[in-house]
Amino acid sequence: MSEPLPDLIEEVISHSDLNADIDNASLFIAQANEDEVALLLESLPIDERIILWQTIPEHKQLNTLLQMRCDPREVLIKETNPEQWDKLFVGIDSEDLLELADSLPVELVERAYEAMDRQQKQYFTRANQYPEEQIGHWISHDFLVLPINARVRDAMRLIRREVPRHTDMIFLVNRSGHFSEAVPIAKLYGLPEHLPLVDIALDDFLVISANAECELVAKDVQLSGFGSLPVVDENQKLLGRIDVTTASELLLEYNERQLMGSVGMDENEDLFSPVRKSAKGRAIWLGINLLTAFLASAFIGMFEATLQQVVALAVLMPVVASMGGIAGSQTLTLMIRGLALKQVNPANFKILLVKEFKVGSLNGIIWAIVIGLVAVAWFKDPLLGMVIGIAILLNIIAAACAGIFVPVILDKLKIDPALSGSVILTTVTDIVGFVAFLGLGTLFLL
Amino acid sequence: MSEPLPDLIEEVISHSDLNADIDNASLFIAQANEDEVALLLESLPIDERIILWQTIPEHKQLNTLLQMRCDPREVLIKETNPEQWDKLFVGIDSEDLLELADSLPVELVERAYEAMDRQQKQYFTRANQYPEEQIGHWISHDFLVLPINARVRDAMRLIRREVPRHTDMIFLVNRSGHFSEAVPIAKLYGLPEHLPLVDIALDDFLVISANAECELVAKDVQLSGFGSLPVVDENQKLLGRIDVTTASELLLEYNERQLMGSVGMDENEDLFSPVRKSAKGRAIWLGINLLTAFLASAFIGMFEATLQQVVALAVLMPVVASMGGIAGSQTLTLMIRGLALKQVNPANFKILLVKEFKVGSLNGIIWAIVIGLVAVAWFKDPLLGMVIGIAILLNIIAAACAGIFVPVILDKLKIDPALSGSVILTTVTDIVGFVAFLGLGTLFLL
Repeated sequence: MSEPLPDLIEEVISHSDLNADIDNASLFIAQANEDEVALLLESLPIDERIILWQTIPEHKQLNTLLQMRCDPREVLIKETNPEQWDKLFVGIDSEDLLELADSLPVELVERAYEAMDRQQKQYFTRANQYPEEQIGHWISHDFLVLPINARVRDAMRLIRREVPRHTDMIFLVNRSGHFSEAVPIAKLYGLPEHLPLVDIALDDFLVISANAECELVAKDVQLSGFGSLPVVDENQKLLGRIDVTTASELLLEYNERQLMGSVGMDENEDLFSPVRKSAKGRAIWLGINLLTAFLASAFIGMFEATLQQVVALAVLMPVVASMGGIAGSQTLTLMIRGLALKQVNPANFKILLVKEFKVGSLNGIIWAIVIGLVAVAWFKDPLLGMVIGIAILLNIIAAACAGIFVPVILDKLKIDPALSGSVILTTVTDIVGFVAFLGLGTLFLL
Repeated sequence: MSEPLPDLIEEVISHSDLNADIDNASLFIAQANEDEVALLLESLPIDERIILWQTIPEHKQLNTLLQMRCDPREVLIKETNPEQWDKLFVGIDSEDLLELADSLPVELVERAYEAMDRQQKQYFTRANQYPEEQIGHWISHDFLVLPINARVRDAMRLIRREVPRHTDMIFLVNRSGHFSEAVPIAKLYGLPEHLPLVDIALDDFLVISANAECELVAKDVQLSGFGSLPVVDENQKLLGRIDVTTASELLLEYNERQLMGSVGMDENEDLFSPVRKSAKGRAIWLGINLLTAFLASAFIGMFEATLQQVVALAVLMPVVASMGGIAGSQTLTLMIRGLALKQVNPANFKILLVKEFKVGSLNGIIWAIVIGLVAVAWFKDPLLGMVIGIAILLNIIAAACAGIFVPVILDKLKIDPALSGSVILTTVTDIVGFVAFLGLGTLFLL
């Protein structure tokens, strides 16, 4: 068992003068897998990353690049000259190039394409017919396949050659190349050689359509209990397969995309991207939020006269907005999970709305009383307590309804509610909260 | 290929009178896997869920419960009487009981324990020595193992019996039961029967320690390219293994925990939990946020006199707080990912801080100018524009620093920054924002 990766990374990084300590780093690289080297490179500031990149043995460079996220990878791609590329592209296959294509300049993609054989070129072209969100883009072509009339001896002959990772099945295809059956390799042992493979094929083996959504397929593969599932085109022709490791990579990427996307960032964001690039990448999200903040301000501005006379309203504004925002995001999060699991649909949507409305009302009443009492104790004004209490109640109920409607509407519009739901929701709760609070204040406190 | 699950679920649910349409539901249940039935039950309001539960054939009931989340599962557990349990517990194994134990009343756990054979009782006791966060709690005991001196013929004999899912290796143990080697099953074909298995064992097969953290192990298993990895205790004794399907279940659960936890909810939250339970479950988070909101209010309260004279400050307050919160959560999210990937450590922490400080300064300057100009245009007061500009700059820089420090400190304290980082961060940015804005307002605008 080797030293855990994080310790090793820390060890290498902590030598602040990498040039002087390049031997230590090289030792690590010699022992580590490509995915560990990739993580090490991503953990290094750009200057050190480039220095270390040059010390990586050529046979590890392509695989290391493949394991990296796009942004940190692009830094290294820029530092690699055309002659180096020609060496790296020797033996590149369609799947490698598909993974790299987004980070490479067009002329390098063409160069790599030309370096591949006819079969790989064909795979590459076919995969590119499916967009990145569809599983057809990511299939592997490394699997065991036999004609439908093959026998046990054919299977044994096939297995004696190379068996790719996660291969627990031999796929059988008919004369037109359509997927037909899956035969478990483990069942082959001890069977008569002339037995037709169809006799031991599994019933109802799950087949994936090439235009299915990546995350859904990835979950299916993960939970199927099989090492991989076959992928077919719209005519049932067997194109390739997705194995559990590819599925897990797709899911990890999906989860990163959700995490980073929820604050308007890209999952490929480099920990050490240059300041200007980084600032630019975050600007759009800040800009959108600025607009919503100004919108809220505009509504507050409608009550300037009130605020001038009852300054306690200004002091307590954040409480009303905050409680609505929090209550709303709880409902929103429950809905985001429900939509992701495909649990929420038109049939149970109304029942959910009623339930969340009731939860909102109950929580609204409780917190209205608590906050109302605190306000009375603080500002010695019972009317102010009543005003903030009613505003809290209204805002928490509005938040519950927005928490149900916003994600459902976004989902209908094919916008991922995990990415933009929160901004829209808090805009609603801010505005409802401020208008209710300041409006009631105008009515009762002037 | 059967109809996709979401459509089927919708079909079943949309028959609002389930009693009248129970045949349709039963037909679905008869065809579906237990995980699909589990998802269907979770998607149903509680009354319908209970009615449908009673129609599920006994042989599917235990596995369906195992596939459900804790909260929706507990509703059904309450509806199941002792005689039913005795039937369900026939053939229950240690892994099933470990999964169910948290949802079952103690007396039922004991009843199930008594129903197991000696071997399973021993597995159960041993797994319970590891807490749920450690992989030892979740290992499976269903794998192929042979003594270190076994030969190819022994392996062939073993394989001819049952091969468990995701089994691409036979594990070899020494006389003390210590894990020694992993032998790829696919390599066995065509070898002489008397060949010692060690001759075809893999070098440096990854071995997992039973007290390792679940998520880290799950990722290792997923990315290893193998169907499962062996798990050993502190003395290297082979305890069991983790396969890719278990790993993916652990990761899905982990991701749900992160998602739901970020708004103070439990990953087991039932979509249709009773109103009172639901409200109670969310109350703590609302309470914590209320405290931080009142804290922010208290700081605003220090500037009551200023607010009374310059009401524009009250109108623009949300803009200052919002920009700081958003900029801070971007840095926070980058750090959360970095910490989860073990990319961030003391060695590169300072470099990151400097980088984020620079990004914050650049974004701060840009947005200070934009917001300052809007404020001047809106309120016709150049000094107000200057005041809000400086407050924005200070708050975005403070947000960047808090975005770095908060998660690192939480991580040191063994608190997951993905769960509580955001509350702490926005408290910081709210307070810094309000104090800077209103403080500068007091200095320059009175």
